[in-house]
Amino acid sequence: MLNIVILGTGNLAKHFYSAFSKADNVDVVQVVGRNQKELQRFSKHSNISNDFDNITDADVYLIAVKDDAITEVSNYLANKKGIVVHTSGATDLNAIKSKNRGVFYPLQTFTKGKTVDFGSIPICIEAEEKNSLETLRNLAKSISKNVHHIDSEQRKKLHLAAVFVNNFTNYLYSVGEELCLEEGLSFDLLKPLILETAEKVWTMSPKEAQTGPARRNDIKSMESHLKLLNKKEHITLYKLLSQAIKQDHEEEL
Amino acid sequence: MLNIVILGTGNLAKHFYSAFSKADNVDVVQVVGRNQKELQRFSKHSNISNDFDNITDADVYLIAVKDDAITEVSNYLANKKGIVVHTSGATDLNAIKSKNRGVFYPLQTFTKGKTVDFGSIPICIEAEEKNSLETLRNLAKSISKNVHHIDSEQRKKLHLAAVFVNNFTNYLYSVGEELCLEEGLSFDLLKPLILETAEKVWTMSPKEAQTGPARRNDIKSMESHLKLLNKKEHITLYKLLSQAIKQDHEEEL
Repeated sequence: MLNIVILGTGNLAKHFYSAFSKADNVDVVQVVGRNQKELQRFSKHSNISNDFDNITDADVYLIAVKDDAITEVSNYLANKKGIVVHTSGATDLNAIKSKNRGVFYPLQTFTKGKTVDFGSIPICIEAEEKNSLETLRNLAKSISKNVHHIDSEQRKKLHLAAVFVNNFTNYLYSVGEELCLEEGLSFDLLKPLILETAEKVWTMSPKEAQTGPARRNDIKSMESHLKLLNKKEHITLYKLLSQAIKQDHEEEL
Repeated sequence: MLNIVILGTGNLAKHFYSAFSKADNVDVVQVVGRNQKELQRFSKHSNISNDFDNITDADVYLIAVKDDAITEVSNYLANKKGIVVHTSGATDLNAIKSKNRGVFYPLQTFTKGKTVDFGSIPICIEAEEKNSLETLRNLAKSISKNVHHIDSEQRKKLHLAAVFVNNFTNYLYSVGEELCLEEGLSFDLLKPLILETAEKVWTMSPKEAQTGPARRNDIKSMESHLKLLNKKEHITLYKLLSQAIKQDHEEEL
């Protein structure tokens, strides 16, 4: 049995709590956070506390707070024997000041109120000590089949890649929504296309799957598209993305 | 029973053929195309022909060829009584020279060899004559529950929106893949995130769902991301997209 303490009461903390509470070999012995109201949501399976100076002993301390608060929270755990891990994609391992430290980064977007199936979420683990890495692997395996040992440099690059396929992609969806609304059309019309485009990554590489006027260097279509755009930033974006796609497929033209 | 002729033997023609062959009230009486080898694939349920001067009479002629060949193909159908429709998102209705003309545009990306469930694909129909519109509606309903009457201007905007959420999004996936490969990481790591990001459009508006350093105006994170990028076009794209997201959410900061 692995005893863990979760530090933080936000969105990610809730998703972890819900997943670990169902895991057979894990006991969430305590949840620590400042927000008394949010803390109540963790009281069903765990002891809850807002006193960072009296944290229960555990095998793993999971820091699930905002990136810039990681170091501060880890300072309260400086004398603990257990492994202190943060859960951030963009933060270095050494943001944690404890000796026995690591990273436990779930590569997924977590939406408030929307349950996710942790089973297939990649969990990227890192630790300096071999035994600690094994403990983190066991902890990760208790909730996911998709566990990877990834170092800080790789993780930062992965987090950057995630910004492209998640944050930036979502922005393109919002442009699509805006264009629909301009014509009095429902955004629902685009949803099956959005899903199919995402599902396609499972069957072929995105570079191979690329279609559209830019890939064909179909100048006539691109010019008529540009005429339909009203916002300056949409025009710049259209040109830049088309240029990038064209460049990536130049050898085929 | 609606009798239809499909003109073209490409990817879209194949997907239509497969869907209409299963529909109860539709008979694909003929498939016409130049490519004799590809034509053979349509011989199971239909008469096939490469003679554009002897096209069988039908209720609807479905032109599923490249955009710039639509007018040429429609010229062979100038004297037909049935409705001549093209299936292109970007092409005007009047690219067809017949009197009884229309559009039958499925808003989806069709991949060679990957079956799609037509049942939920939006089919955007347009016709000048009321009776023709009704016929197209019945034809569309035979394969999809998602049928919309959309005029040429709306359709062009929709096609443009589709470029953003499909072509451009797919390009962002390919950037994600490239960044993974640079670090010796598998692109598989990003796939659950890609799918979850797409699925989220069903539960909330993309503008509302927007997350990431740009939305929070987290300058420190954005600067470290930019340092990790090597390609000039990725840097420009990162800056532009971050700027656009920031601008869209300025009032919250």
